[in-house]
Amino acid sequence: MITSPPLSVEWVGGLDGLVRLIDQTKLPTELVFIECRDTDTIWHAIKRLSVRGAPAIGITAAMGAVLGVRDHADEVRDSLLNRLDTVCDYLATSRPTAVNLFWALDRMRRFARTMVESDVAAIKQGLLDEAKRIRDEDAAMSRAIGAHGQFLIKDGSGVLTHCNAGALATAELGTALAPMYVAHEAGREFRVFADETRPLLQGSRLTAWELSRAGIDVTLLCDGMAAALMREGRIDLVITGADRIAANGDVANKIGTYSVAVIAKAHGVPFYVAAPTSTFDLDTPTGAAIPIEQRDPEEIRRGFGPATAPPDVACYCPAFDVTPAELIRGIITDKGVIEPVSVETVAAAMRSAAN
Amino acid sequence: MITSPPLSVEWVGGLDGLVRLIDQTKLPTELVFIECRDTDTIWHAIKRLSVRGAPAIGITAAMGAVLGVRDHADEVRDSLLNRLDTVCDYLATSRPTAVNLFWALDRMRRFARTMVESDVAAIKQGLLDEAKRIRDEDAAMSRAIGAHGQFLIKDGSGVLTHCNAGALATAELGTALAPMYVAHEAGREFRVFADETRPLLQGSRLTAWELSRAGIDVTLLCDGMAAALMREGRIDLVITGADRIAANGDVANKIGTYSVAVIAKAHGVPFYVAAPTSTFDLDTPTGAAIPIEQRDPEEIRRGFGPATAPPDVACYCPAFDVTPAELIRGIITDKGVIEPVSVETVAAAMRSAAN
Repeated sequence: MITSPPLSVEWVGGLDGLVRLIDQTKLPTELVFIECRDTDTIWHAIKRLSVRGAPAIGITAAMGAVLGVRDHADEVRDSLLNRLDTVCDYLATSRPTAVNLFWALDRMRRFARTMVESDVAAIKQGLLDEAKRIRDEDAAMSRAIGAHGQFLIKDGSGVLTHCNAGALATAELGTALAPMYVAHEAGREFRVFADETRPLLQGSRLTAWELSRAGIDVTLLCDGMAAALMREGRIDLVITGADRIAANGDVANKIGTYSVAVIAKAHGVPFYVAAPTSTFDLDTPTGAAIPIEQRDPEEIRRGFGPATAPPDVACYCPAFDVTPAELIRGIITDKGVIEPVSVETVAAAMRSAAN
Repeated sequence: MITSPPLSVEWVGGLDGLVRLIDQTKLPTELVFIECRDTDTIWHAIKRLSVRGAPAIGITAAMGAVLGVRDHADEVRDSLLNRLDTVCDYLATSRPTAVNLFWALDRMRRFARTMVESDVAAIKQGLLDEAKRIRDEDAAMSRAIGAHGQFLIKDGSGVLTHCNAGALATAELGTALAPMYVAHEAGREFRVFADETRPLLQGSRLTAWELSRAGIDVTLLCDGMAAALMREGRIDLVITGADRIAANGDVANKIGTYSVAVIAKAHGVPFYVAAPTSTFDLDTPTGAAIPIEQRDPEEIRRGFGPATAPPDVACYCPAFDVTPAELIRGIITDKGVIEPVSVETVAAAMRSAAN
């Protein structure tokens, strides 16, 4: 029985090693790895969504930057730094709206420039160490969310989640799924219910796959079925991830999350969000200030191959929705659980996290 | 501009004519008709869901019974009646749980036996007339629901519906969609939002198709998006169909209907059900007494063709859910609108319908 989640991205070997990614486009029917030995393979893997999830993209890009400089022959330090900039600029074009991608690449550039006393070989090794630190910090973040959130999951609990905020989106345990992995490690028996999450089915393709592979009892359902399940009394709590959290605790997350929060409230089921403190954006006062991207209607009209709708029918296809703070029982962060959720409790948590 | 809905089933010509069905398995990409000249073609069309929706199945079966006896050569009356029984028994095996199928076939058998003075030729013509009456009564029922419900739809309204309770499921205008067709005929401009309705996508495949073909402004969305749409203030009312209505007004309908009712309540959006009085089952005291069929998990795991979930993952896949009466603003029937919905108002409406 496999009991640990899969690793979405890992560096294998030393500086002459490779980056191994799960090709998430092949899931859930095949577990195929992509072995990346150069920046170009990394760029395409990010571009074609073989790796997705903000933290996993950031880690992959940082490791891709290492691949782009390690064979740089010139022993002049500035030549290496120029090469690093070129590689990072290129990698940044793979997913133009991915904040973690830019953040990780900037961190790699800045780090190299801090190694003012080092020669080229040392900088190359230092960049690999930094990329691994980005990965390890992310893993520690997941582990901390898991540790803080696991106590919400009792023996016999039914836990509903939406989309995939799991191992596949991060270095190790995910965000929303981290409390489940940690509770599972602790030997508790519970059942996860995974919304399939239309239109892109991250719940059925990814969450159901990674949880069942880790030996966690998971049941898949269509998004419209969650209310009936709650009415049957089978859901004790909901945990979802977050894409951005406003200063008042409003949460932007995958479309459908707000629907789950509304039906959870109607059934007296506590609704939790799990996210690292880096997801909070105190410059955004409320959810109303978060722009909502509209996606391609083809994601609805021909979601998975054949057309399932009239070819030209208009579609409402937002990528995200906003769940207001008053529907959220608590936010599980790497620094602890914010509960209740308000401007004051969020501000206090962020002050304490900064210290 | 086509402004009338398509006919799911019609008898073309005289007694030597044929039954023309829309092959609903080909929608929404192709409008293909099946021309049925014998009972066997009808049986297969029902079996393989080329025709679906309880009223449409009943009408099709009644017409199929006519096809099965019209060429019966024996001029002896009892021989024809025996032949009719054989044909009806056969047709009844096409969809073993379809109540309207049995009802329509029984009505045809009983009708033939009332023609005690008639010869074989007259009985054959009488059966065709009776099958057409079943169809016409269904069309009149839709028209009456449309007439009673149309006033709920104002110029500029946003109307949400779930699944397909439309022309394709009945003889002409449907149940939930009938008020929309009648309001459209009256020249009012409004927008329909159609839930795609996982797992079987009746909303995207059928509702979006028939409404757009009729020139009604329709926008498709995934089931989990309806709450976000309501929060944006774009939905003024919801109208869905019903599979069975209990004596207290609880409504069993396509899975996902209850979810819509809960989020409508949370947003102060009135939730209406449209159904003929024949859908009420006064022997069922409340929704708790309605058995809920569980469907094949493959409908979730490979609902779009290719596998989109791990092959063996457990699924929660009820065919229906129950919406409690307290979430229902009113029930639009062919005899008028029941509002508010309670044991007393349902009983009063049924008494008045019986008179």
